Amino acid sequence: MQRLEQQLTLLMELNKLKNVLRKIKVKPAENRLENSAEHSWHVALMAVLLQEYANEPVDIKKVMIMLLIHDVVEIDAGDTFAYDSQASQAQFEQEKQAAERLFGLLPSDQGASFYQLWCEFEQAETPEAKYAKALDRMIPILLNADNQGQSWQEHQISKSQVVAVNQRIQYGSEALWAKCQQLIDEAVAQGWLKAQ
Amino acid sequence: MQRLEQQLTLLMELNKLKNVLRKIKVKPAENRLENSAEHSWHVALMAVLLQEYANEPVDIKKVMIMLLIHDVVEIDAGDTFAYDSQASQAQFEQEKQAAERLFGLLPSDQGASFYQLWCEFEQAETPEAKYAKALDRMIPILLNADNQGQSWQEHQISKSQVVAVNQRIQYGSEALWAKCQQLIDEAVAQGWLKAQ
Repeated sequence: MQRLEQQLTLLMELNKLKNVLRKIKVKPAENRLENSAEHSWHVALMAVLLQEYANEPVDIKKVMIMLLIHDVVEIDAGDTFAYDSQASQAQFEQEKQAAERLFGLLPSDQGASFYQLWCEFEQAETPEAKYAKALDRMIPILLNADNQGQSWQEHQISKSQVVAVNQRIQYGSEALWAKCQQLIDEAVAQGWLKAQ
Repeated sequence: MQRLEQQLTLLMELNKLKNVLRKIKVKPAENRLENSAEHSWHVALMAVLLQEYANEPVDIKKVMIMLLIHDVVEIDAGDTFAYDSQASQAQFEQEKQAAERLFGLLPSDQGASFYQLWCEFEQAETPEAKYAKALDRMIPILLNADNQGQSWQEHQISKSQVVAVNQRIQYGSEALWAKCQQLIDEAVAQGWLKAQ
């Protein structure tokens, strides 16, 4: 069962995603930052819940797998804050190497299939990737709207930054981008997000 | 967009699963207990990785959704340790009420569909539910085997308890149950699990 051993090796390696921290705090907990594993659960389930708002019909199985694996590269490359304008081509190269290492632990047929799906997500060109990316961008907006703009306030983020980074949500779902714009404007009105 | 508001209300309510703690510690972290949200991510991805070992062909999309939602009832009812023999019909009733409350937040068509899928998982009769249940039982065995039997040792669990609770894994996957038996025997040999 060499094949099963390889698969279980990756499964245990993936455990490490539970220790990669993001910038959003988990409400109403003891001031704890969300990790990328629980984020991945939340956004994969979000994909099922909100499927009807995708601009184009999507293969939801593919979307779910994409979202379950989209952040595993952070095990080696770390999390990049969406508003970190220094995050560069070098960061993407690190993530690509991480994908090669991690999916390279699998039997080659399965590893190639996961690697391809991870690249498809990153390229954001297919209906599935555009919808999955839209959700990955939307969920921090929802969490901030639900938590007095905590990560926006802590990192001095402005509306123009939020719009610049997140307007691509509309390529995956115009309906969800409309909702995001409403939440962004409400956050500015509440003083949770800088107007400029 | 009343429908979208209902869906987003559930999505934010689900956030609470990130604060439901299990008995397994996250390795190699600072002695932190795993929460049910990150567990749900891990086991949903496991379903994709190990699909070829299901006893019967499964609709993997259905399995993934089942595993993404299987523990959300713990938001109201709390986590039940697999070896807690006091967990009773009363516990199941609490979980059922939690499922009704949570999925009841959704538009009724969608809520009914999620509720039905949650019940299907609990009943463990379809190929998808048997495979999903097998994975949910197997992953703590893998994590214990990878962490010197931490939760078994802390709770004084014996091999006979592990076998009694987990032998139903074979209904979902005979191949994976064979692997579990090997890991259980190795844990006894290492002194991480009581022989009796």
